[in-house]
Amino acid sequence: MTDLKQKILAAVDDDLKTIEQALAENLNPYFELVSQVAGHILFAGGKRLRPLLMVLCARLCGYSGNHTARFSTIFEYLHAATLLHDDLVDGADLRRGRQVANQVWDNPTAVLAGDFLLARGLSIAADTGLCDVIQTIARITENMSQGEIRQLEKRGDITLSEDDYLDVIRCKTAVLFEGACRTGALVAGATPATVQALSDFGHHLGLAFQMADDLLDYTQDFSSLGKHAGADLREGKLTLPLIHALSRAPEVDRQRMVAILENPNFTGTEFVSLVEMLKCHGGIAYTEAQAAAHIQMAKTSLQQFEDSPMREILMDIADYALVRKA
Amino acid sequence: MTDLKQKILAAVDDDLKTIEQALAENLNPYFELVSQVAGHILFAGGKRLRPLLMVLCARLCGYSGNHTARFSTIFEYLHAATLLHDDLVDGADLRRGRQVANQVWDNPTAVLAGDFLLARGLSIAADTGLCDVIQTIARITENMSQGEIRQLEKRGDITLSEDDYLDVIRCKTAVLFEGACRTGALVAGATPATVQALSDFGHHLGLAFQMADDLLDYTQDFSSLGKHAGADLREGKLTLPLIHALSRAPEVDRQRMVAILENPNFTGTEFVSLVEMLKCHGGIAYTEAQAAAHIQMAKTSLQQFEDSPMREILMDIADYALVRKA
Repeated sequence: MTDLKQKILAAVDDDLKTIEQALAENLNPYFELVSQVAGHILFAGGKRLRPLLMVLCARLCGYSGNHTARFSTIFEYLHAATLLHDDLVDGADLRRGRQVANQVWDNPTAVLAGDFLLARGLSIAADTGLCDVIQTIARITENMSQGEIRQLEKRGDITLSEDDYLDVIRCKTAVLFEGACRTGALVAGATPATVQALSDFGHHLGLAFQMADDLLDYTQDFSSLGKHAGADLREGKLTLPLIHALSRAPEVDRQRMVAILENPNFTGTEFVSLVEMLKCHGGIAYTEAQAAAHIQMAKTSLQQFEDSPMREILMDIADYALVRKA
Repeated sequence: MTDLKQKILAAVDDDLKTIEQALAENLNPYFELVSQVAGHILFAGGKRLRPLLMVLCARLCGYSGNHTARFSTIFEYLHAATLLHDDLVDGADLRRGRQVANQVWDNPTAVLAGDFLLARGLSIAADTGLCDVIQTIARITENMSQGEIRQLEKRGDITLSEDDYLDVIRCKTAVLFEGACRTGALVAGATPATVQALSDFGHHLGLAFQMADDLLDYTQDFSSLGKHAGADLREGKLTLPLIHALSRAPEVDRQRMVAILENPNFTGTEFVSLVEMLKCHGGIAYTEAQAAAHIQMAKTSLQQFEDSPMREILMDIADYALVRKA
């Protein structure tokens, strides 16, 4: 484990335990099967990053009440809901090292359990009694479903632009990070300027987080990410490293990359040669630089806050998003 | 067309037009594909019964503003979302006479479009600014997803009791009717007693509506219902006519019914003989009587209102739920 990861975990250990407990207590299913399916994805060792961000942002804004853990579950329930629906999209076998729910049970059961988690998130949002929070959560769900549809629609489309990519990752990832940070500020009764600053923090962190995730698909092996390297590519999902490399490569390399992309049964050797081309044509370095730039913007949003241990943890989390290996 | 249907349609003609327009105007998709998939199910000639109930209930409570059409779309969006997810469950080919969305596109696209519709419903609910309404909508979604999972879990289970069945149809159907009527009252600023009376009206109407629907599966042909007779049976979905008949039939007939139920490839002749047994052992008559009893309870809930054209239409709709043929 890196020093940075250890430092963060030590600082948020108590919060993570409280969040874990809240996730179990607030699920509140009516039927046992719902509990099983939702629990299968919920309690498979997620990082709890989204609820943690909400709790930390509320505290940064001076909130000291005891409702944040309950409200923070919204962001993990929403996240788990999209994972359940995504696994259907992606056709993956494993998620967080466990067999995906739609294989343990079946597609409809996984979809309906996702619906339930979505509804739980919205119910708990309704319990805040804060219209701003409720609207934020509803808009997150709208954006996420549309981002996923867009991504699906553009599968295998080699003309996908960097702007299209940014649009997709904003919808499918950044809005949830942004919503978690924003809700933390809203629950704390922060001023509009502070709410905006933390929304911006979440937005840029979310974009960087997704870029780092997309990079991992080309740079990590099975054991640490819990899914096969090259999975995005196999699904025809074009991400920034490839989009950038395609835009820069000479025609001969471009055609070699497209040929690999268009054959979902590409070999390990072909994948390695694709990664080499991504490196050679700047796709990896460009994506790393873009992710780093968004982390910088995220950290800049925190400058309006006085230096404090809470601000430092958020800064550390932002830095860690760039270097994480899983 | 029956006289009753004609009378109702004449009375609500303007409302239906306004609702239709609101459904198109409030969908508000960000990407074209979302609009296509959601529109495929939304604009295939639905009855708009749920939004209509909301509008009529608000007016019965004295509401004369112009926000009901927008808010009423919530109930059609939620309904359409569950249809999109249900078609995945049911494996049907046709819905409202059109090829189902998960065949025109694919499973993931249909699921994500359903998520979007769900989210739109919740976003519009958030726009009411009424916490009661928002909580009602969030709870509807929780209940519906759980009811569907329960139904799926119990597929082919010949021990399903009448109570289990009531639990499922309450979750999957009655909560949405109840929520539509309740929201109409809430938007109109009705007293708690009135809100409760209209919630009860919706609850009983929803139960009766689902019972009538379940009866149609045994009594209607392809042309009028838009799906094959016996579809529920083919999916192993036990509904009240069969549950009741199984509980009453002598062992020899019980075994004949179970044999047909357990063979999804039953022939037309076998289906006809099953329907005969349902009639012979009181399954059809009992379900009709239960549906009629719930309609009576629904109408009783309206007795606290003074006689008015609006109350009469709601009474007529309740009566029509029993006799409708599609």
